[in-house]
Amino acid sequence: MSTELTPEQIDYFMGQALYEARKAGALGEVPIGAVVVNDGEIVGRGFNLRERLQDGTQHAELLAISEANRLLHSWRLPEAQLFVTLEPCLMCAGLIQQTRITDVYYGAEDPKGGAVHSLYQVLEDERLNHQVHVVSGVRQDEASQLLKDFFKAVRKRRKAQKRAEKEAKNN
Amino acid sequence: MSTELTPEQIDYFMGQALYEARKAGALGEVPIGAVVVNDGEIVGRGFNLRERLQDGTQHAELLAISEANRLLHSWRLPEAQLFVTLEPCLMCAGLIQQTRITDVYYGAEDPKGGAVHSLYQVLEDERLNHQVHVVSGVRQDEASQLLKDFFKAVRKRRKAQKRAEKEAKNN
Repeated sequence: MSTELTPEQIDYFMGQALYEARKAGALGEVPIGAVVVNDGEIVGRGFNLRERLQDGTQHAELLAISEANRLLHSWRLPEAQLFVTLEPCLMCAGLIQQTRITDVYYGAEDPKGGAVHSLYQVLEDERLNHQVHVVSGVRQDEASQLLKDFFKAVRKRRKAQKRAEKEAKNN
Repeated sequence: MSTELTPEQIDYFMGQALYEARKAGALGEVPIGAVVVNDGEIVGRGFNLRERLQDGTQHAELLAISEANRLLHSWRLPEAQLFVTLEPCLMCAGLIQQTRITDVYYGAEDPKGGAVHSLYQVLEDERLNHQVHVVSGVRQDEASQLLKDFFKAVRKRRKAQKRAEKEAKNN
């Protein structure tokens, strides 16, 4: 049984996931953030740290769920909701399904790697022992804008670097 | 480019994964073990610790890959092989794909949750940016036997417990 969340709560918790995403961005990571909510309270938070730690497991959702597991002393989270700024990948969707999270709220779609709607529909797979209720597009514009700004800055940095290399060659 | 492994090496590295699996079994965990090999050497080891740590992320493969990432200071493992006693689940297959591991050798099939051949074929998905070469059935009998013995012992313990509860009620 999941707790019914009000629209204000959904907005608030996604705001917290966006806050986590901004922390990732500030460290030069792709800005993705997540929080796990149980009984109306945040019990796990995470942001993407893959580059910083050079560890492929360090996705926002994985960190938030692991933290919630340890806080609640249970790898099963049958009353929890996950809020994440980007559609989860296969790894994270697999973990969400296995931990019996009841609801996932996500912001932007990930057409290249999303495993909830885009490439796979893992969370509604009837062959698995648990299905997850999904709400997409929550504060989507903010989540998308964060990602767009990040990749724009990356391209700008690369361009400047190339120009500097070219100039160094010519001198 | 992956290193070519000899049949003797394949046998040896799966033996190391089985050794990890036995450690899990000794702690009362479902006996699953994994090792990551790079340039002919083991660079990551892991065994299932989900119950002990009450953390859904603690699968053998995830722990082995995370260890390899940190040891090699890279979340990409484009020359690595993974050996695991059971067909990887969605979470672990997603991570394997993302970290660009070249080859996966696994032991037993997992018809209920396997994401390499059984339920999904994640590692050969052409829509993703990397495909993984897979060899299944490596030392399969030993991997299966470990799991069978484990679940047999679990059932025996449950039966004994029920009997004890019944007797306590009757006294």
